[in-house]
Amino acid sequence: MSRQKSHLQKAREVLPGGVNSSTRFNRALNSPFYVARGRGSRVWDLDGNEYIDMSCAHGAGLLGNAHPLIDDALLLASKLGYVNSLETEYHEELARKVCSLIPCAERVRFCSAGSEATLHLIRACRAFTRRDKIIRIEGHFHGYHELIYIGGHPPQSEFPGNRESPFIESPGIPQVFADLIIPVPFNDREALEQVIRQHGDEAAVLILEPVNFNCACIKPEPGYLEFVRKITEEKGILLFFDEIQSSFKKNPGGAQEDFGIVPDVCTIGKALGGGLPLSAFCGKAEIMDIYQPVGPVQHSGTFNAHLVPVLTGLAFLNEISKPYFYATLSALESQFHRGMDGMIQDLDLNVVVPHYGSRFNILLGRKTPAVKYEDTFCHQNQLFLKVLRACWEKGAYFHDYGGGPLHHGYSIQHSAEDVDEVLNILEDVFREFREELVIQ
Amino acid sequence: MSRQKSHLQKAREVLPGGVNSSTRFNRALNSPFYVARGRGSRVWDLDGNEYIDMSCAHGAGLLGNAHPLIDDALLLASKLGYVNSLETEYHEELARKVCSLIPCAERVRFCSAGSEATLHLIRACRAFTRRDKIIRIEGHFHGYHELIYIGGHPPQSEFPGNRESPFIESPGIPQVFADLIIPVPFNDREALEQVIRQHGDEAAVLILEPVNFNCACIKPEPGYLEFVRKITEEKGILLFFDEIQSSFKKNPGGAQEDFGIVPDVCTIGKALGGGLPLSAFCGKAEIMDIYQPVGPVQHSGTFNAHLVPVLTGLAFLNEISKPYFYATLSALESQFHRGMDGMIQDLDLNVVVPHYGSRFNILLGRKTPAVKYEDTFCHQNQLFLKVLRACWEKGAYFHDYGGGPLHHGYSIQHSAEDVDEVLNILEDVFREFREELVIQ
Repeated sequence: MSRQKSHLQKAREVLPGGVNSSTRFNRALNSPFYVARGRGSRVWDLDGNEYIDMSCAHGAGLLGNAHPLIDDALLLASKLGYVNSLETEYHEELARKVCSLIPCAERVRFCSAGSEATLHLIRACRAFTRRDKIIRIEGHFHGYHELIYIGGHPPQSEFPGNRESPFIESPGIPQVFADLIIPVPFNDREALEQVIRQHGDEAAVLILEPVNFNCACIKPEPGYLEFVRKITEEKGILLFFDEIQSSFKKNPGGAQEDFGIVPDVCTIGKALGGGLPLSAFCGKAEIMDIYQPVGPVQHSGTFNAHLVPVLTGLAFLNEISKPYFYATLSALESQFHRGMDGMIQDLDLNVVVPHYGSRFNILLGRKTPAVKYEDTFCHQNQLFLKVLRACWEKGAYFHDYGGGPLHHGYSIQHSAEDVDEVLNILEDVFREFREELVIQ
Repeated sequence: MSRQKSHLQKAREVLPGGVNSSTRFNRALNSPFYVARGRGSRVWDLDGNEYIDMSCAHGAGLLGNAHPLIDDALLLASKLGYVNSLETEYHEELARKVCSLIPCAERVRFCSAGSEATLHLIRACRAFTRRDKIIRIEGHFHGYHELIYIGGHPPQSEFPGNRESPFIESPGIPQVFADLIIPVPFNDREALEQVIRQHGDEAAVLILEPVNFNCACIKPEPGYLEFVRKITEEKGILLFFDEIQSSFKKNPGGAQEDFGIVPDVCTIGKALGGGLPLSAFCGKAEIMDIYQPVGPVQHSGTFNAHLVPVLTGLAFLNEISKPYFYATLSALESQFHRGMDGMIQDLDLNVVVPHYGSRFNILLGRKTPAVKYEDTFCHQNQLFLKVLRACWEKGAYFHDYGGGPLHHGYSIQHSAEDVDEVLNILEDVFREFREELVIQ
C-alpha cells in the first residue's frame, strides 16, 4: 500500500474524513493529497513522488512554496518574539500599504480566514444601513458561514427553485438565515433591478465577486459593474466586492482597479499573507469607523493580525509592488493560454479555459465562457475528475473537491518550463479522453 | 510626544481605532499598547520601556514570547516549504495528540480563530440534532459571531431583561438570530431545568464555559456540571464545553478532565498554537463525522490547520506533556495567590482574586468569588482601570478593554522573581488606591 493510502486510513481515525477542511478531499484522487514538503513550483507526496503544484493553495500560494522572502519574515517574527495580540509598527505599515493599493480602502482590518472577513464586514454593513437583507449573486462564493452560505450554489436539480426561500448550502444552517438572503443571477441587470424595486429598502448590501472565481471564472459583462455601482448608490445599498479570490491575482489593486469601479467596502485575502493565513476587509472610513473602539460594532479576536502573517503579508505586498512580479505572471498567463487555446482548437475539444491573471478554470461541455451560474451546468464533473486524476498520475497536481468548475493556477516561482510541462501533460490527457471531450 | 502616542495617531488613519481588534484598545491606557518586541515574560513598548507581560495574549501566550521551541517550529515550517492548504503527517500527529489529551475528543478539526471553532461546531450540533435553538449561560463567552454573540453579557441597566428576547451584543446582528438563543444564569439548576422543560425539544445544544474565564473566573458549583451532563443526556441536547479559554491553563486535558465531566463536543484553543493562531473543535466520532466528506455538513477554509501553527501546536502539546510544565505553572500560581491573599487581608481590601491554573481575575467590590454573572456588577470598572494604569506606569502590563472583570496571567517563562515583582507593584498600587478599594 502507498503511504498516501495508509496515511488516509490513519488520519480518518482522528480527523473527519482525514482532513481539516471538507474541500481538501480531492475527488479526483478519492483522497486528500498528503504531502511531505514543497519547494517553489513543486510538492512531494508521502511516497517521494514530485508534482507541479497547479493548485497553489486555491490561489493563496501566489509566491509558491518556500519563498526566501517568507523564510526571512518568519525569522524576523522569531527575533521580535512573535508578540501575539499586541500590535507593532509593522501592523500600521501593512495597513497603510493596503490602503495605498486597494482603491476603496481608506481603513482596513486584518484577520486570518476569508470567512471571518466577510462575516465581520457584513455586520458593519448591516449596522451602517440599519437594514438586514443581503442581495447576492448566484454562483458567487463568500465564505463558509451562516450569514451567506445560502443561495450561492443550488444544485442543478433545485435550480432556480424559489429565490424567495433560497437554497441552504449546508445542513445545520437555520431557515431564518435564509430569509435574509436574496439571490439574483450574475450579469442580469433586469433581475437585479426588479429585486431592488421589490426589496431595495430592506437591503443592507449587494455582495458579489467582481470576477466569479469559484464558478468558471465568469467575468462581469461590459457595463454590469457600472450598473451595480449606480443602482446601489441610488438606493442606499452598500456595494461589497468580495475580492478574497480576485485580489492580487492580476494586479496589486484587485478587480476594482482593473475594472475601474470602486465599491463601498471589500474583502481581500487568500494570497495576501504570502502563503500564510491572512485576510482583510476594508472600505470607506465612514463605514469602517463603525467598529469599536470608534463606533459601536464589535470586531475582535485574539489572533486577528498576528505578527507572523503581518510580516509575511508585508513581504508579499512589497514584492508584488516590484515591476517584475506581474510582468512575470502575465508572461506565464500568455504562454499557458496560447498553449491551451491552440490545443483545444487542434483537438476540436468542447472545452473552454476562462482565466483572470494567474488563475484559470477548465470548463467542459462548452466552447464559450459562461456568463452566469447555470451556464456551468454543462460541466462534466465525473469526466473532469478522470482528467485531473490522469494529470496527477503524470505529475501535475490539480485540486477538485467536486464542486463544479473550480480555479487552478501557478505562482511566481513557476517557470516557462513548468508551464510547458503542464501543457504537455494536459495535451496527453486531453488526447486520451478526446472522444468524451468533443461530444457536445 | 511619546512614540506610543504618535503611533496611535498614525495607526488611526488606516485602522479603525488604530487596532485590528476592538478589544485590543486598552481602556486603562486609553490607547492600544503598541510594542516593539517581546522576549520571555517581557515586552518592550515603542519608546523602549520594559514591562512584565501579565496579559500573555489573553492566555494564548502560555509559552511566553519568543520560546525557542516555537522558533524551531517556524524553521521547520520554512524547511518544509509551509505548504498551505495541503496536509502532512504532522496534521495527523497533532490530531492524535489532541485526541489522547482531551477526554471527549475522538475526532478533531483545526482552524485559526476561536470564533471559527464555535461557529463550525454549532453548525454540526444543529445538523446532528435537527434542532435550531441554543441554550447558553449568562456571562459566558463563545466568540464574536452572529450565532452566539447574543445574551451573554447584557449591561447591568438591561439585566435580566426579557430572556425570551435576549440582548444582542453588537449592532449589525439581526433580531431574528436572537430568537434562537435561550440564556440562563450560571450555577442555577432550577432555571436550567425550567428552560429545558419549556424549550428542551427545540434545543440542539447547551453551550457553556466549564470555568467562566471572561467573567470573574467563575467556577461551576459542586454538582452543577454533573447536573448539566445528566439533564442534557436525558433530553437529547448536546453538551458543548467551550474550552477555548480553559484548555491547557491548568492541565493537559482541560476543565473536562479536571472536573471529570465529559461533554459531547468541545472547542479548545487560545494557548494551543504555542502563541500562533490555532483553535480546534472536537467530540464524539458520531457527531464529528457529520462533516463532509464523511457526512453532509460543510466545514472548509483554505487556511484551516495551516502547517505553521500545526507545527507550533505540536511543539506546544509535546512540551506541556512534560512533568515540569504544570508543576512550574502550579508553583507560580501558589506563589502569586499566597501573595495576593496576604496582601488583600493585610490591607483589608474589598477585592477577590479568583483563579484557574495560570489565569486569574481581579474582581473589585466583593470579598467572595462570584457564582453568577450578576454577582460581578459590583466590579468598579473605572477604579480598576486606574489601578491597571498605575501598574503599567510601574512596569507591569495588564490588559483591560473595559468589558468587566477580565482574566490575566503568566506564562511558563515567567519566573518566581517576575511574580514577586508583580506582587510588589500590585501592593504599591493597592496601597495608593486603598481608600477606594476598602469601601463596601
